[in-house]
Amino acid sequence: MIQHVVSASIITIGDELLIGQTIDTNSAWMAVELNKIGIRVKRRVAVGDDADAIKAALDQEAVHSEIILITGGLGPTADDITKPLLCAYFGGKMIVNDDVLQHIHQIFTSVLKRPLLDRNLKQAEVPDVCTVLPNPRGTAPGMWFEKNERIFISMPGVPHEMKGIMEFQVLPKLRDQFQLPVIAHRTLLTAGIGESFLAERLIDFESSLPVHIKLAYLPNYGMVRLRLSSLGFEKDVLIRELESYFQSLQEILNDVLVVNEDIPLEEVVGRILVRHQKTMATAESCSGGYIAHLITSISGSSEFYKGTVVAYSYDAKETFLDVPHHTLEHSGAVSEQTVTAMLKGLLKHSGADYGIATSGIMGPGGGTSEKPVGTVWVAVGSGTAMETHCIRFRHDRKRNIELTAANALLYLLRFIERDVKN
Amino acid sequence: MIQHVVSASIITIGDELLIGQTIDTNSAWMAVELNKIGIRVKRRVAVGDDADAIKAALDQEAVHSEIILITGGLGPTADDITKPLLCAYFGGKMIVNDDVLQHIHQIFTSVLKRPLLDRNLKQAEVPDVCTVLPNPRGTAPGMWFEKNERIFISMPGVPHEMKGIMEFQVLPKLRDQFQLPVIAHRTLLTAGIGESFLAERLIDFESSLPVHIKLAYLPNYGMVRLRLSSLGFEKDVLIRELESYFQSLQEILNDVLVVNEDIPLEEVVGRILVRHQKTMATAESCSGGYIAHLITSISGSSEFYKGTVVAYSYDAKETFLDVPHHTLEHSGAVSEQTVTAMLKGLLKHSGADYGIATSGIMGPGGGTSEKPVGTVWVAVGSGTAMETHCIRFRHDRKRNIELTAANALLYLLRFIERDVKN
Repeated sequence: MIQHVVSASIITIGDELLIGQTIDTNSAWMAVELNKIGIRVKRRVAVGDDADAIKAALDQEAVHSEIILITGGLGPTADDITKPLLCAYFGGKMIVNDDVLQHIHQIFTSVLKRPLLDRNLKQAEVPDVCTVLPNPRGTAPGMWFEKNERIFISMPGVPHEMKGIMEFQVLPKLRDQFQLPVIAHRTLLTAGIGESFLAERLIDFESSLPVHIKLAYLPNYGMVRLRLSSLGFEKDVLIRELESYFQSLQEILNDVLVVNEDIPLEEVVGRILVRHQKTMATAESCSGGYIAHLITSISGSSEFYKGTVVAYSYDAKETFLDVPHHTLEHSGAVSEQTVTAMLKGLLKHSGADYGIATSGIMGPGGGTSEKPVGTVWVAVGSGTAMETHCIRFRHDRKRNIELTAANALLYLLRFIERDVKN
Repeated sequence: MIQHVVSASIITIGDELLIGQTIDTNSAWMAVELNKIGIRVKRRVAVGDDADAIKAALDQEAVHSEIILITGGLGPTADDITKPLLCAYFGGKMIVNDDVLQHIHQIFTSVLKRPLLDRNLKQAEVPDVCTVLPNPRGTAPGMWFEKNERIFISMPGVPHEMKGIMEFQVLPKLRDQFQLPVIAHRTLLTAGIGESFLAERLIDFESSLPVHIKLAYLPNYGMVRLRLSSLGFEKDVLIRELESYFQSLQEILNDVLVVNEDIPLEEVVGRILVRHQKTMATAESCSGGYIAHLITSISGSSEFYKGTVVAYSYDAKETFLDVPHHTLEHSGAVSEQTVTAMLKGLLKHSGADYGIATSGIMGPGGGTSEKPVGTVWVAVGSGTAMETHCIRFRHDRKRNIELTAANALLYLLRFIERDVKN
């Protein structure tokens, strides 16, 4: 058992990462899971499907880290060159692994119900110098190599396959092999204050922090998440100490605090609704279902969420939300009058206690001099009270949609917080 | 002017990348843009807010690549250490840049309308050994350094700020400085055939490819994208040759081809609708607005998309979509009868020509032995014809939602393709 801070590198392999066709979500997930068991990810590297580049990355990351996790390059097609390369790199030869062979047969006969091809059987071949890590969710197994006191773990790049191998094989094995430190984080979310102003307020607090506790600013969607992290070997002491600093931080930021956990805004809204046994619904025009998607991505959201009407046309706004035709004609779809009417219609038809309505011009087309691209009207409220907000965003379509959703959820949260107090 | 293949490395800086709090979308975007002008991204590396780690990355990437692009670590807070480090690394001293100073003043007085803090003014300080790259969308400027025939470009990590600097400064300057080759890609999307079967079909095709043309398999959501890439200096020859191979590829895969461009499925659906002046709408239960979000992320989607009703409760299904109460009681929300009724109600109320209805159990909770987690019913159709599909997914909530959307869009596309032929 080794007692020190264990560091890891993540190597992702695939040309698609280097031409930007694929966004790498695997590394972030792996980093979170490694962090939880006290392994610090020091570097993440992406290289193409190129033997020299992969070898150079293996050599180099072994200098930086004790554990090297590799994903990608293990599929059944000709552009996957990783397995034979790893075999040669670790000085082994390829042999058929019977367990993997049986598993592949089983997947093809009972799950995929397709005939097996030779190239699928090839996936049962593994270097004789590795420990095979079974892949219950796919055909390419993981492989665990050890060389010069370094551990190299190769996994397929398909996210849910990689996750299964990490969860059931890699993480337990790493926990057995190392005596790992505790890494603790506490995160809170603020709104309505810029990064620089936060930093001004926190000058004294930051200088009071011991060296092993770090404060990070993570701005996103006009809000700032603050994260305190601490690393050490005495779990109780570390947690107690971090907790005390986190308490001070919350007190200093009391007036701008949204939530003192690392959860998304939509979950904060969901929790307060469930706690008060209330429900909500949304009427989205410009946000186009994105608020609904955020909320319904939370398991159990059917408890508090009635649904959304995305009314992209005048017709839909009139039919589903009772927006009067003259309101649309007179004030236009992007107006205070229209979002108010949308919200009223939504609350009436859905029977929800609270609601959000959005309408705006997300770009790149559709702007006018009076209502430029980025103009958004949001209404939030209940059957008895409503408030409206007009925002002007200056970004691209994607970001305008995301910002609309984040702001609308924040307005609703603040509305509900006040409402349930009365 | 240098004529050879120019390679780049991307270094992203930030602890949040290594603990997985942030997914790196910047690198993928940068890779796409660099690729377009003929620069090949060779490696992408992420390191934490740690001086030694950043220095090691700068040293190392300079060995691999001629151009090193750096994002992150330039904010106004104490965890941003990159600028002084770069200054020291390139042997300069910090000086105030008047243009940047004026720009910061302007942003604070006319856009943010907030008082300026000292730490904001600090952002006007730059190393005297760099060329300043103006940042019209934020306060931290980009910086261009040259050392030992390597170019180092540092930019803020906020995506829309980085994109502005890349587009208006970095890409034009790189194009001036190098004689860049042509990198060409052609991509097509297939459905209904697994990666291994595709590879079997393409054995002869793959072996006929010259060395400078590569074929890559990019499986996602049960479909496989195939990409042919070619690199060279004679643009016309290269494009003509690639086009001819791409033509053969399409012929071989004619029966499983969805689209012969690198566009998402929702855009393929949108195009066929616009071409035939038809419209669509969606009624989403289990997909929770995700289909609407995909469609409304396309600029101009209001031309063919009427909107969605996300009916998460029995109530909402009855009120907004006329699903008969006895259907829900008798068959349950996740049933062929319910999705059929949802689709009928949707088409009636929305006036759309085509529609999609989804209902399923996305997990982790809510499954029964008869209807396990992952059971999804999808109906697609028009006022005159409908078809239903039952699918069983085996993944997590997020992936089940994404797969439902992808499959539903594909069913609708196939339906429309047949319908417009008649």
